Amino acid sequence: MSSKHVAIAGIGATEFSRDSGRSELRLAVEASLSALADAGLSPSDVGGLATFTLDNNDEQAVARALGIAELTFFCRTPAGGGGGCGTVALAAAAIAAGVVEVVICYRAMNERSQYRFGQPSTVGPKLVPTSSDVDASWSAPFGVATPASKMALSARRYMHVYGATSEDFGRVAVTERRYAATNPAAGFYGRPITLADHQASRMVADPLRLYDCCQESDGAVAIVVTSLERAKDLRQAPVAVLAAAQAIGPNQVGMASPYTDNPAQAVESRIVGDQLWKRSGLKPGDIDLAILYDHFAPAVLMQMEALGFCGPGEAPDFLRDGAMEPDGPLPVNTHGGQLGEAYIHGFNGMAEAVRQIRGNAVNQVVNAARVAVTSGSHVPTSGLILGSA
Amino acid sequence: MSSKHVAIAGIGATEFSRDSGRSELRLAVEASLSALADAGLSPSDVGGLATFTLDNNDEQAVARALGIAELTFFCRTPAGGGGGCGTVALAAAAIAAGVVEVVICYRAMNERSQYRFGQPSTVGPKLVPTSSDVDASWSAPFGVATPASKMALSARRYMHVYGATSEDFGRVAVTERRYAATNPAAGFYGRPITLADHQASRMVADPLRLYDCCQESDGAVAIVVTSLERAKDLRQAPVAVLAAAQAIGPNQVGMASPYTDNPAQAVESRIVGDQLWKRSGLKPGDIDLAILYDHFAPAVLMQMEALGFCGPGEAPDFLRDGAMEPDGPLPVNTHGGQLGEAYIHGFNGMAEAVRQIRGNAVNQVVNAARVAVTSGSHVPTSGLILGSA
Repeated sequence: MSSKHVAIAGIGATEFSRDSGRSELRLAVEASLSALADAGLSPSDVGGLATFTLDNNDEQAVARALGIAELTFFCRTPAGGGGGCGTVALAAAAIAAGVVEVVICYRAMNERSQYRFGQPSTVGPKLVPTSSDVDASWSAPFGVATPASKMALSARRYMHVYGATSEDFGRVAVTERRYAATNPAAGFYGRPITLADHQASRMVADPLRLYDCCQESDGAVAIVVTSLERAKDLRQAPVAVLAAAQAIGPNQVGMASPYTDNPAQAVESRIVGDQLWKRSGLKPGDIDLAILYDHFAPAVLMQMEALGFCGPGEAPDFLRDGAMEPDGPLPVNTHGGQLGEAYIHGFNGMAEAVRQIRGNAVNQVVNAARVAVTSGSHVPTSGLILGSA
Repeated sequence: MSSKHVAIAGIGATEFSRDSGRSELRLAVEASLSALADAGLSPSDVGGLATFTLDNNDEQAVARALGIAELTFFCRTPAGGGGGCGTVALAAAAIAAGVVEVVICYRAMNERSQYRFGQPSTVGPKLVPTSSDVDASWSAPFGVATPASKMALSARRYMHVYGATSEDFGRVAVTERRYAATNPAAGFYGRPITLADHQASRMVADPLRLYDCCQESDGAVAIVVTSLERAKDLRQAPVAVLAAAQAIGPNQVGMASPYTDNPAQAVESRIVGDQLWKRSGLKPGDIDLAILYDHFAPAVLMQMEALGFCGPGEAPDFLRDGAMEPDGPLPVNTHGGQLGEAYIHGFNGMAEAVRQIRGNAVNQVVNAARVAVTSGSHVPTSGLILGSA
């Protein structure tokens, strides 16, 4: 059995907020129970858990709190947001190999109320020098220490090489906030912005403005993955995992590599795309909508190019022509994305892809049958092609 | 293709010491290059990396230092030593599913010279309360905060329920030190001990004496995993992964669960064993020797029982009869184990299993064709059945 015979059978989430008021363990459990109920499964059906190395919940605690007696598959993806689709990719491989039948992929975090993600650590003991510290020595001494300040380097290079402007990034933000405005689950529900608003928003890390940056959110999302065969007997119409991929590119370093040949391109996203197209047998023109990881708006443009939705440097024109609008050729981040809905490390985007294929998204794309989903760019990254079964 | 069609094609290691004098990144790279050379592969053949969440090396840095241009598979196993065989299990599933062809599983650490593993953290800022902190609230306030002090609870219960004695644990230490004494790579090469030495060694955490505890080591080990078909074309005779498994048991918490029904049994090891026997079609009597994870000597007895090599409570008699000696029915930890060779989080045990099947171990078991290997007990754990192809 290949990964093509794997499906998403259930999705679940907590509310998204800036202060959940409860523990990350509870968030993980709530989202997982919600996803199991959506699938029509119970905790005793679950054999595996997959999440991020960054997730603070111990698998043993999640299993115990859910009431799972035995787990026979568990793994984590490194490096944060780039791992979202990767958890599904790893689960799909294990299911395809016959190692496990039902896996919950999840991410739960109080990323706004309990800590703020990506803050450089300046206090406390340093137990051991790591490879990451050596990598950081190229940027941290110059004040480049947060995700925004690192992504700013690639964004500036992208502007320099291709003539892109802040307005081009702004078009991503405006469109996503427009989608979010009609999504009751979104942090920015009812709060669209104009391009002028974007241009007036304060500079966070030149050239990234406030509205180019994703939200900081509390919340959890869980995705139930199982075999397509088993999914067909469950409550929801299965959403097939037509392809899944992970990638680390050449000479990659965190979010800003001093070694890369071309920081204006998201090479790791291109490697993900190459695998997705090869494994699914599809091409970019076959995709009805995309969920492109949007920690920062420029990443959406760079991924459009890396995945082949347009040529190198063509994303600004593609967007100016309304590509990612509801009636455009490639609606993108129809839930409002992480700029508009919430920043749950890409997991909320996977849930949106499932809703679109089921046909019950708040900003439903007509006849959405094939969706490309990505997690991360400029980090160890991953992607999926999901489709109606 | 199932995981049965996956093989170990190469093994590599640095020297084992108490002070490597170089970075953990360098250790990882040295062991990986050694394993690739052993297999007759080069870094450009490698598509995946698998290690522990606890490993301090970033995959991106390891790939860059090795000269791997593109990685399309990467994952980590949680919870320390229990993940060793788990990295191979995850790699095997991905290879079986056709996601990747060649994966390096590795663990590199300066666990003696740069930090000492398992030390409770008592300084520095606490960014966020986690499920692990809640779990620790059952033990830490009573001074049970290190692996030894946690394992001591299970060991004492095992003595109480089955009448085992400190001498029974000592027989594990004496036999492993005897194996280590003839292994030039071992930390205790040329330094066997007697049962009297064991009994005279100081109490670390009652009932665990110093010689019941594994070493603290600097070093790295790498294992190259690929398809059996590809392995057949490589430098070494392939060692087949006949079965691979992971397990978290019911109500498990770290190394000492306040919720478990029977702390005298290693339930998670029993769940690993159930899967290994089922998947391999073998039974305990088919196994020529075993590598049983030995962070602490009592774990070897409890795993013998959990895996079905003897009945519950029978391990002390089994050992008294010389079971794990070179000419016994089940030679165990023939490299000297982690008590005698080095503590590389179980990875050195996997390498020993490969050497035994190849027929070039220092303490070679005659006609060793099928080896059971485990990583961890009393934590999220894993195991393999390896065999001649």
